[in-house]
Amino acid sequence: MKELEVKVPCDDLGGLESKLGEMGARFVEELDQVDLYFSHPSRDFGSTDEALRLRRENERTAITYKGPKLDRDTKLREEIELGIEDLELMSSLLERIGFRPVMRVAKRRKVYELEGVHFCLDRPEGLGEFVEMEWQGDDIGRGREKIMELKQKLGLRGNERRSYLELLVEKGRG
Amino acid sequence: MKELEVKVPCDDLGGLESKLGEMGARFVEELDQVDLYFSHPSRDFGSTDEALRLRRENERTAITYKGPKLDRDTKLREEIELGIEDLELMSSLLERIGFRPVMRVAKRRKVYELEGVHFCLDRPEGLGEFVEMEWQGDDIGRGREKIMELKQKLGLRGNERRSYLELLVEKGRG
Repeated sequence: MKELEVKVPCDDLGGLESKLGEMGARFVEELDQVDLYFSHPSRDFGSTDEALRLRRENERTAITYKGPKLDRDTKLREEIELGIEDLELMSSLLERIGFRPVMRVAKRRKVYELEGVHFCLDRPEGLGEFVEMEWQGDDIGRGREKIMELKQKLGLRGNERRSYLELLVEKGRG
Repeated sequence: MKELEVKVPCDDLGGLESKLGEMGARFVEELDQVDLYFSHPSRDFGSTDEALRLRRENERTAITYKGPKLDRDTKLREEIELGIEDLELMSSLLERIGFRPVMRVAKRRKVYELEGVHFCLDRPEGLGEFVEMEWQGDDIGRGREKIMELKQKLGLRGNERRSYLELLVEKGRG
């Protein structure tokens, strides 16, 4: 599955939520997410722009591989994700074969849907507030247009291509 | 979890099944298993005596790490296993991070239990017939004694420490 995603910083998620409501957005869900990122035993995921992640999201646990970003404007990249039974066991298994947990990202996420676009209103611990706009359909060209259109209508500015993981790493260095 | 396991070749699984029945063994289950073994991107699992396996067993799918064998007589080794949602997706994910599927082992397994020992009557494709005796309790010393005692009572001889994977690899080389 290809994931088309645009992320922007947002100072006022409460205000954005009201606007989305006025425009007819549908509330999808509220999630508590904990992400655990791993380093590879012989590959530098930082240079290859890949990521391996375990995520616990409310009751569900999943493992996700993210491939390198495929274009410049969005965060389009290959993503392979599947449910797993247990985060701790999977973490131990990965450590046995040389992967190391390098970063933990916790966030509260509220999700709305409008015209095929998912809006994730994110509060990642220690990083502020962001909104991620995701298109999960096949027609990537149409998704890109729709996201840009809604972004403008909602008065959102900027484009944060770095992941929360990258932002946390950079914050740690600063 | 530590897994204590002794495997022996057996020419007559039907006869063994009758004996187990006479001794009061309890039938546990019958399984169709397909195992897919992977190589590591930067470690030779053959030399380190480790294994990473995806298994589909009837309706359940799991990922398993097996550590090096810890003694000479049995197949005692660390094992980490957890359920996963989808074998094909996990296989793709592993391939993206440099693992390669190197061997497929399919077998039909019938399981009986007697005095705390699980008897797995195995028919691995292309390898003949075997019985694996497994002790899953904590008291490894007691498990070892019990397995040796039942092995003798059942007239089983030999000790095959190689996995079906290793046997298949060697058969391919021969």
